Amino acid sequence: MARVIVDVMLKPEILDPQGQAIARALPRLGFSGVAAVRQGKRFEVDLEGPADEAALADVRKMAETLLANTVIEDYTVRVEP
Amino acid sequence: MARVIVDVMLKPEILDPQGQAIARALPRLGFSGVAAVRQGKRFEVDLEGPADEAALADVRKMAETLLANTVIEDYTVRVEP
Repeated sequence: MARVIVDVMLKPEILDPQGQAIARALPRLGFSGVAAVRQGKRFEVDLEGPADEAALADVRKMAETLLANTVIEDYTVRVEP
Repeated sequence: MARVIVDVMLKPEILDPQGQAIARALPRLGFSGVAAVRQGKRFEVDLEGPADEAALADVRKMAETLLANTVIEDYTVRVEP
């Protein structure tokens, strides 16, 4: 059984109010030195078989159609070592 | 400027209804071979300075107090290569 990680983040040109809220809260909570925070989603996809090229192509299609909104989000797919 | 990634996932013993909903939707959408899906959060924290030990300790404290609910979530902190 292999685990594939799909990270979904807002595209850089899309405003991220959640990340901005966190970044603005930090100084108030005593943290300095943070320039920016962006928040996204992480999916752990456990495959029944090995993470071969066909399975990864399937996960990429899954990310494209189900996990990410590709109008405003980018995704990356990688096999967990 | 360094980027630190904080991944926050529900603890393994905590039910993940979002991940389950995705896993259940997959066969309907033509995807097979997925045993389980879990959904979590990913934070990209851009530091003003380098990601040295002091900065990473700060980010860990930030994850502990602000980004993760450690009663039900685990987090990992790593420097993006």
